[in-house]
Amino acid sequence: MNKNSSDIMALAPNTPNKRETVCIFGTGDFGRALGHKLIQSGYPVVYGSRSTQISNLIPKDAEVLGHAEAAQKAAIIIIAIQRQHYNFLTPLAEVLRGKVLVDISNNLKLNQYPESNAEYLAQLLPGSKVVKSFNTVSAWALQSGTLDASRQVFVCGDDVEAKQMVMNIVRALGLTPLDKGSLLAAQEIENYPLQLFPMWKFPIFLSLGLAAFFFLYCVALDIVYTYIYENNNFSFFIAITIPNRVCPVVALILLALVYLPGIFAAIIQLYRGTKYRRFPDWLDKWMLCRKQLGLIALAFASLHVVFTLVTPLRAFASWRTSKRIISQALNNKTEPLDHTNAWLSDSYLALGILGYFLFVLLGITSLPSVSNNVNWREFRFVQSKLGYLALIFCTAHTLVYGGKWFLSPSAYKWYLPNIYILSLIVPCAVLVVKFVLIFPCVDKPLTRIRQGWERNPKYSE
Amino acid sequence: MNKNSSDIMALAPNTPNKRETVCIFGTGDFGRALGHKLIQSGYPVVYGSRSTQISNLIPKDAEVLGHAEAAQKAAIIIIAIQRQHYNFLTPLAEVLRGKVLVDISNNLKLNQYPESNAEYLAQLLPGSKVVKSFNTVSAWALQSGTLDASRQVFVCGDDVEAKQMVMNIVRALGLTPLDKGSLLAAQEIENYPLQLFPMWKFPIFLSLGLAAFFFLYCVALDIVYTYIYENNNFSFFIAITIPNRVCPVVALILLALVYLPGIFAAIIQLYRGTKYRRFPDWLDKWMLCRKQLGLIALAFASLHVVFTLVTPLRAFASWRTSKRIISQALNNKTEPLDHTNAWLSDSYLALGILGYFLFVLLGITSLPSVSNNVNWREFRFVQSKLGYLALIFCTAHTLVYGGKWFLSPSAYKWYLPNIYILSLIVPCAVLVVKFVLIFPCVDKPLTRIRQGWERNPKYSE
Amino acid sequence: MNKNSSDIMALAPNTPNKRETVCIFGTGDFGRALGHKLIQSGYPVVYGSRSTQISNLIPKDAEVLGHAEAAQKAAIIIIAIQRQHYNFLTPLAEVLRGKVLVDISNNLKLNQYPESNAEYLAQLLPGSKVVKSFNTVSAWALQSGTLDASRQVFVCGDDVEAKQMVMNIVRALGLTPLDKGSLLAAQEIENYPLQLFPMWKFPIFLSLGLAAFFFLYCVALDIVYTYIYENNNFSFFIAITIPNRVCPVVALILLALVYLPGIFAAIIQLYRGTKYRRFPDWLDKWMLCRKQLGLIALAFASLHVVFTLVTPLRAFASWRTSKRIISQALNNKTEPLDHTNAWLSDSYLALGILGYFLFVLLGITSLPSVSNNVNWREFRFVQSKLGYLALIFCTAHTLVYGGKWFLSPSAYKWYLPNIYILSLIVPCAVLVVKFVLIFPCVDKPLTRIRQGWERNPKYSE
Repeated sequence: MNKNSSDIMALAPNTPNKRETVCIFGTGDFGRALGHKLIQSGYPVVYGSRSTQISNLIPKDAEVLGHAEAAQKAAIIIIAIQRQHYNFLTPLAEVLRGKVLVDISNNLKLNQYPESNAEYLAQLLPGSKVVKSFNTVSAWALQSGTLDASRQVFVCGDDVEAKQMVMNIVRALGLTPLDKGSLLAAQEIENYPLQLFPMWKFPIFLSLGLAAFFFLYCVALDIVYTYIYENNNFSFFIAITIPNRVCPVVALILLALVYLPGIFAAIIQLYRGTKYRRFPDWLDKWMLCRKQLGLIALAFASLHVVFTLVTPLRAFASWRTSKRIISQALNNKTEPLDHTNAWLSDSYLALGILGYFLFVLLGITSLPSVSNNVNWREFRFVQSKLGYLALIFCTAHTLVYGGKWFLSPSAYKWYLPNIYILSLIVPCAVLVVKFVLIFPCVDKPLTRIRQGWERNPKYSE
Repeated sequence: MNKNSSDIMALAPNTPNKRETVCIFGTGDFGRALGHKLIQSGYPVVYGSRSTQISNLIPKDAEVLGHAEAAQKAAIIIIAIQRQHYNFLTPLAEVLRGKVLVDISNNLKLNQYPESNAEYLAQLLPGSKVVKSFNTVSAWALQSGTLDASRQVFVCGDDVEAKQMVMNIVRALGLTPLDKGSLLAAQEIENYPLQLFPMWKFPIFLSLGLAAFFFLYCVALDIVYTYIYENNNFSFFIAITIPNRVCPVVALILLALVYLPGIFAAIIQLYRGTKYRRFPDWLDKWMLCRKQLGLIALAFASLHVVFTLVTPLRAFASWRTSKRIISQALNNKTEPLDHTNAWLSDSYLALGILGYFLFVLLGITSLPSVSNNVNWREFRFVQSKLGYLALIFCTAHTLVYGGKWFLSPSAYKWYLPNIYILSLIVPCAVLVVKFVLIFPCVDKPLTRIRQGWERNPKYSE
Repeated sequence: MNKNSSDIMALAPNTPNKRETVCIFGTGDFGRALGHKLIQSGYPVVYGSRSTQISNLIPKDAEVLGHAEAAQKAAIIIIAIQRQHYNFLTPLAEVLRGKVLVDISNNLKLNQYPESNAEYLAQLLPGSKVVKSFNTVSAWALQSGTLDASRQVFVCGDDVEAKQMVMNIVRALGLTPLDKGSLLAAQEIENYPLQLFPMWKFPIFLSLGLAAFFFLYCVALDIVYTYIYENNNFSFFIAITIPNRVCPVVALILLALVYLPGIFAAIIQLYRGTKYRRFPDWLDKWMLCRKQLGLIALAFASLHVVFTLVTPLRAFASWRTSKRIISQALNNKTEPLDHTNAWLSDSYLALGILGYFLFVLLGITSLPSVSNNVNWREFRFVQSKLGYLALIFCTAHTLVYGGKWFLSPSAYKWYLPNIYILSLIVPCAVLVVKFVLIFPCVDKPLTRIRQGWERNPKYSE
């Protein structure tokens, strides 16, 4: 029996807006979860199953019939079975003719099959209207009602009306349909839930690698060296002092790496004299992960800011201050204000604050909802102009702060350069080349190339 | 006379894109505001009114006619009258047949009537195409042009073409239509503008309750006790010292409360041996407000961070430092660096920074535009893995910081435990049970249950 | 020859989902970039060109024909030529009858022509279905694949089916179409890419002007005056001390300026006794840039917070602390804790923290994705109630901090008031008038006016 126990139907028992019956093929986990949810939303549900004996697991208000009878009761059939069993549907082709088939399947691996499951289904049953949907929704979330994550449900298909019917169901379940166009998009939609931050992998590994290298470098120079040659145990530097040296260095290098591929692209275009040849693959990939590099750089910069601001709260800092003041007091003298030092300390703090401020602005404009509200001209202004300004401020901040170490010979423990020197190589190189690139004699041909002009048309043949 | 004085029409006087006439029933506040705006956007507007004498309040370029004549002039009629007067429309049923009726009404209370106003209208006039829309827009905002808040206008209705016509008008007014499906969604749309953060109420009351309790607890132990037994007046602790004790405690407890319902759910599922029975109501509700609990916890944690960072700027801190240093100086000795202390102080600061960093990451992924751009796998990774890591770091931060108080008997003023001990109960319980749950012998059956397996199928009968 | 070399087509060579042929008129930069991208996405592309000799620049897999032959091969024709050459299309009117013409053109200036390019095209070829689209996409971004910015592509047109066809192409290119309604929206869409933060210009200039004024004011009073009369060189104050005085002052004034227009509006409505007359233009414009003013105020407030928090790290602060402690030590005395001072310092810090906290909350709710998820009642609650609370806290913070300067005569260097006094004028005025406005005897008539009541109906005649 098909009883509608939902609240909505109870409230409007005689309205003509009765929901159309939905058929679900397959009584697996997702089929049952979706059925429960559909019944809650006021849809009569019919299951198509090999064994029509009523299982305990199937929602009480649903009917269970054989596949053919179930399919006849509904205009929409949700195919909640796995791709490898799709061929059992071919004998049902006549019953399914003209019906809307909703493919909700997922694969276990990216691009597991040559064509998407939905396209395969459409090939098997050319008389039916196949719509891909629901594959990004988790059965567990449907069941528990905790749809905290994205409520967006991708929908694609070749038949506009069939898509509309599926999108209405999606909306009735409290989700937001997103039309992704024709069934060709099914491949992309099927790959989507298998991804785990694919764009973030390389930037994260790179930054963790850099961080690990600089961490060990600092441990060697600041803890091991000091312990061996000065017999001081500064092992507690591992907690704050060294992270606070590693974070700014990694942040600065990553920020420079955001702008380096643009420099390479400009040089390649100038050398080739055309923009109509593809960049090498590594450069293309690098350019596509600039946003991620920038955001990781911002994370490291933020850690640096907090690590720096807690300095006065550290027992070590408090002990060092006491020691300095007491030694002055015991010598009965007060040192006058060192103006050079005051200038230097205030300058690098101010430069760092301004650089970080611009950096945070860049991060905010990277939020999808913000970047969707700016046009290209505005986006380019923020990301390029403000981005370079942030890089200049941050590089200057490091130069002013680390400057004193460059010349002092005592800084070269074990003849190794200080990490400030290492951190400045890439940013300074980027800024110098960029400075050359904005000279009119270089900028003009580059602009012309980017507008479509070609020096040697032979390249594009 | 029907003159179109809008800018847009002036620019394109002879284009065939002339806007269709819109009829408005009712000359109340919203009807007038909408009419003004429609005329500004180039629509000819006809008002349907009982008294056809031209009122001063009605926009100058609009016509005013009787209801029947006005309705005949337009294909779209906006019903700007209250639900209790809808029955006067029944005599007009013939005139309104086939027309698009836009129900813009709102109620004064949630679920005031058994069916939504739009569905009621559709029952009264079954020959017309009823579309629900515009009820979330404020007349004042339409009038003043200050549509700062959401420009989204929900639209629902059973007739696709009628919906399209209304959505075109919405777009022409500079707003964004959002199709919510069939007329069944009208109830939800009518309830929407009456809500005031419904999901936030319980989390906010809970956290304010917790904060008030711990505040009074601290006032008693830190100010009253000290005043009575040590005769010290530390009343100024109310401004910063005590808030900075209450905030981290509330933040930590709330963060643990985010993960506690998941623990309960796992235990219930293990005990029942099935996932096909609903959780108790309190658990369902608790799970649905985890995001809000987490964000409030983040707010308290952020206040704790800022309160901590301003410590060196406080007159009290500066006085305490002076006192300590001067007493050392007067004793003519400098204390050596206490390495244990340096380690402890740096560890809890570093743990706190990392915990807060992860916490902020969680907060950023809760932004709607960010969580719409991640899939389920990614969302679960961030919210579950990174979330537990944040809880571990924050609990460790509190343990290292508060550890010294556990054993010292002087900490038990009036035989009451220190608030650090109170704050650690819930987080430690959550972490211990979670630790048990990830043991393979517990995790395996749980995973099977969540994939649909049942130990005792009788439960689901 | 028309070969489809794309990956997608390779994967599904025999599917019926073959993409329809797209014709592009014009072989300029954007035409070529779009052609490349279309071919990559599996569309057969035909170029319509005056000279049909195959150019090197045109994608290899595309055909090049005369305009008429090319147009006959496709149902969609993308017009990638400039507006001034549109009239050459008139002889092709017969061939183009019933076809979908996609106008992708942009202008060089806002509102360059009386009607939009797309409407002009529709007037020239009344038999064709003109759709405006793609004008917000950059050729360079299409080419390089680095569509970091908005993936939204605006689409408008009078023919629903034609729009659907264009939106499908947009989706196939990996972009998100956004239906902006009828062709009347083309003007707005054409103006969109020419804008550079139009709403931000006035607020930014205003705040930079204020900041420059207060900076010079502080340089005069704090550096020049001190140098002349006290012979102290505090030039390094330029880096941190003075910015940290200017930022809070500008932030507070801007925050007050956010609420001032609402005050003016209320007074004007009370005076006029009606809400049905437009506000003066300057007030309308001011009200529309309140969000921008508020966000810039938040930026200045954030800078103030960071500048304040780095204080203990400055060489100057460290020198001042040493000096104070040593002078106490040399006098062999420890000063007792000054309770008034402890109260004052803790209060203004706590007030500032709470004010800033509310301010950040306001900023977060201004994010488009957040404000789209709240209804009017919620938005007004946050922006009005919490906003005024933030203003009260920030004003109180300044009053408590700057209070001591008001009465001390030494504060009036060169008989000029301290900047704290200047900064408090606007916020205090706003708060006082707002306080008057919430009195029932003023609030009641105002509420009635805002609900549509009129004191003197003559005004609206």
